[in-house]
Amino acid sequence: MSDLETRIARIEAKDEIRELTARYCHAVVDGDAETIVSLFAADGSFRTHTFAPQGHAELLEFYGNGVGGKTHKPFVQNHVIEFEDEDHASGRCSVEIRLLQDGRPFTQAGHYHDRYVHTDGRWKFAERNYMRYHNVPWGEGWSK
Amino acid sequence: MSDLETRIARIEAKDEIRELTARYCHAVVDGDAETIVSLFAADGSFRTHTFAPQGHAELLEFYGNGVGGKTHKPFVQNHVIEFEDEDHASGRCSVEIRLLQDGRPFTQAGHYHDRYVHTDGRWKFAERNYMRYHNVPWGEGWSK
Amino acid sequence: MSDLETRIARIEAKDEIRELTARYCHAVVDGDAETIVSLFAADGSFRTHTFAPQGHAELLEFYGNGVGGKTHKPFVQNHVIEFEDEDHASGRCSVEIRLLQDGRPFTQAGHYHDRYVHTDGRWKFAERNYMRYHNVPWGEGWSK
Repeated sequence: MSDLETRIARIEAKDEIRELTARYCHAVVDGDAETIVSLFAADGSFRTHTFAPQGHAELLEFYGNGVGGKTHKPFVQNHVIEFEDEDHASGRCSVEIRLLQDGRPFTQAGHYHDRYVHTDGRWKFAERNYMRYHNVPWGEGWSK
Repeated sequence: MSDLETRIARIEAKDEIRELTARYCHAVVDGDAETIVSLFAADGSFRTHTFAPQGHAELLEFYGNGVGGKTHKPFVQNHVIEFEDEDHASGRCSVEIRLLQDGRPFTQAGHYHDRYVHTDGRWKFAERNYMRYHNVPWGEGWSK
Repeated sequence: MSDLETRIARIEAKDEIRELTARYCHAVVDGDAETIVSLFAADGSFRTHTFAPQGHAELLEFYGNGVGGKTHKPFVQNHVIEFEDEDHASGRCSVEIRLLQDGRPFTQAGHYHDRYVHTDGRWKFAERNYMRYHNVPWGEGWSK
């Protein structure tokens, strides 16, 4: 590739990765576990303080249980992406989530440390590591 | 155009479309109905569950009534854009809105299904279709 | 530079400037005053309705006092950037901030009018001017 083409490819990759995190949010809102899982690499993982499903089968079970009720509305912001090589990148993005928990409105905030991999012609999540700041009843707010 | 130029033009178009949705938010905050309307194509439309103004005259009446009090602060995120051809695209983006309703603070969330058209040398809204999740008193939160 | 290279450089600059505002948010969350200050030009300034530190020494004092408690979680959106020349740009972006004030959860919203300068091979803040809409206890919300 020419130098210009390399630079364009890098910009296109960042654009696709940002949309990857947006598509994830939309699929959560839509309660569409299969689409969420398709955004992960075959051995991709999602790690929280309590869960760590890895691979499409575990991810499908995890998200199938998690998003079917369409209780979560995530909003992603503040995205910074850095490349390791042409096919691997890492990123950090912030998230606010409106959700219902046992029928009550909650608000959650945190950020993702992601790793992205270019595979099968698409950028996908290799890892999502979720660092949660708080998950609290909407009206009460957080205390730390 | 060369292949590289076509790719650059596509990236520039996505950048302009993302800024289009940001400019919309800023104009709402500023209470500037004329600027909002200028972001729509001549026959552009805005559809909600209750309203559907179409064309600059109806849009100006709608936004003139709606934003003059500077009651709304919209925040757009999670933008995904797909092109139909060089001059037409569609997109989905999420929105959170802080607003005052009869002097009380409300929070609203939802997403837009947009259609964009390149006309008069600029990308503009051909359609904004607003899917609202909830519009509730801030302190109480939502229940579905 | 060729015309194509000029266009690519402009896109890269906008990308870097958007990440600049995201890096700022991440550094605030991390309580990392030195990183925040490094995002400003040597004579850069941050202006609010009450403060106006200018230059790295004043900024370091301001942010050192402000972010050490890791009380603030800012979320930036709606970014529009316009160039004055190859090394100077201005922008407007919206922000929502979750914060603790005397141990109580507050919510704040507003927008930044920024000026950016390309210096030492990086885009940095020349000025951040913060226009605050409100800063209120989370559960109560705002009244204007």
